[in-house]
Amino acid sequence: MSRTPLDRLRERTARLAAPLCVGIDPNPERLPEELPRTAAGIERFARGIIEAVAEEATALKINIAFFEAFGSAGMAALERVRSDVPLDQFLILDAKRGDIGTTAERQAEALLGHLAGDAVTLSPYLGEDAIEPFLAYPGRMVYLLARTSNPNAGQLQDMVTDGVPLYRRVARWAVDRWSDPRVGLVVGATAPDELRTLRDDVPEPGFLVPGVGAQGGDMAAAVLACNGTRAPGVVNLSRAITGASRGADWADAARAAARRVRGEMQWVGATLD
Amino acid sequence: MSRTPLDRLRERTARLAAPLCVGIDPNPERLPEELPRTAAGIERFARGIIEAVAEEATALKINIAFFEAFGSAGMAALERVRSDVPLDQFLILDAKRGDIGTTAERQAEALLGHLAGDAVTLSPYLGEDAIEPFLAYPGRMVYLLARTSNPNAGQLQDMVTDGVPLYRRVARWAVDRWSDPRVGLVVGATAPDELRTLRDDVPEPGFLVPGVGAQGGDMAAAVLACNGTRAPGVVNLSRAITGASRGADWADAARAAARRVRGEMQWVGATLD
Repeated sequence: MSRTPLDRLRERTARLAAPLCVGIDPNPERLPEELPRTAAGIERFARGIIEAVAEEATALKINIAFFEAFGSAGMAALERVRSDVPLDQFLILDAKRGDIGTTAERQAEALLGHLAGDAVTLSPYLGEDAIEPFLAYPGRMVYLLARTSNPNAGQLQDMVTDGVPLYRRVARWAVDRWSDPRVGLVVGATAPDELRTLRDDVPEPGFLVPGVGAQGGDMAAAVLACNGTRAPGVVNLSRAITGASRGADWADAARAAARRVRGEMQWVGATLD
Repeated sequence: MSRTPLDRLRERTARLAAPLCVGIDPNPERLPEELPRTAAGIERFARGIIEAVAEEATALKINIAFFEAFGSAGMAALERVRSDVPLDQFLILDAKRGDIGTTAERQAEALLGHLAGDAVTLSPYLGEDAIEPFLAYPGRMVYLLARTSNPNAGQLQDMVTDGVPLYRRVARWAVDRWSDPRVGLVVGATAPDELRTLRDDVPEPGFLVPGVGAQGGDMAAAVLACNGTRAPGVVNLSRAITGASRGADWADAARAAARRVRGEMQWVGATLD
């Protein structure tokens, strides 16, 4: 396939007309009732969700910690899940890595080589040494954490440096350092004002926007933040889609929820145009 | 065993009289010539090093990315390596994780539950949400990244907030937030002035000091920074010990190097007293 992952993201965004990323965070405590709370259970759940939402989601995001918690059995399950992802999908491995030198190279091998992710999430705290080894994989994307969606995100990210909060400095640093469309930012939707401010600050990079749905973020602000960037942005929803039902209809309920959210995003996008 | 991991770290520090942490970063490109560049090769290397340095090292640090790069086979190797670590050792799993909510809980389960690490390294960028799930495991330690040892560490960590570099604000935040001796800091030795400044700023937390040895950090400054803290500090050396020879004598050479470094640390410690 000569198309790069970024090409695929662009094609899917155009075709599906909604920046929907479905996040797969298989918490054994919240699995459908019919599935065991084991590595086999989260594997069946992940594969079922991927099949159910494939036609509605522009991208998929797998939070790999839920597999890592089961050790080597969990990683073997993740390998099978990954091989089940349709070739034309765009798969983000949410790992939030950040290390240096040969360690970062081995992390990149784990996520982009062995698991063949199309994109990864990375922490910026160690500087470019933690990012470059991932960009050495042609066509893959990285999303650097700028403003996260958790309640205590501001403890560090809001520290004021040169008159602006750290997360804005991080975003500016990323844009100044890399003009590459493959470098995006993670910007939570739970603080819509900050999302808008950051979008104004740095109009270029594609955003990965978590926090809409179960975390209560602002859908319109999130969808708007995905427009007109040098790589398409995506808005991630996890539990609001994958947890739509814990009964026997869980896969159908997830598909219906994805379709509903995609429609809402299309409506918001059309209204904003 | 009623002793906690922190008790064990204290006992080993007192008994060995040197804050030596041996870092195991099994890079397949730098393995002893007799070992295959596979998951089996890094497993044999790690187990050989652990056996060789057991009597000289106060602590061991395993950089888990080198196992993750081999997927589920690498994780199975890591599980066997972990079960080989003597019960009276203190094992730091160097993973530099940082995530939120249930994801952080599953990371803690992976590293402190499933792999039964005594300590982990964590990134502070997401705030306390990323740290607390690890502290829920009694007796385990966490080391938060403050100042790392890589060439571009300063890109974020030196950003000035309220008149001081970010890494000093992070250290102060950690100390203000947790009076718990189980919360330590990662502070690289490659910038000895910064190490000393930080030690003066926050006299309380135990430091994990990388960057001595192959990275050229200052041994005396590193050893001095480990004294008198509420949990003992450790100075990590990886390649300078584990890469002492790539010939058939690699395990013996690592043992000899560990003994030499431990002696050097004892000498520095005695001189500083």
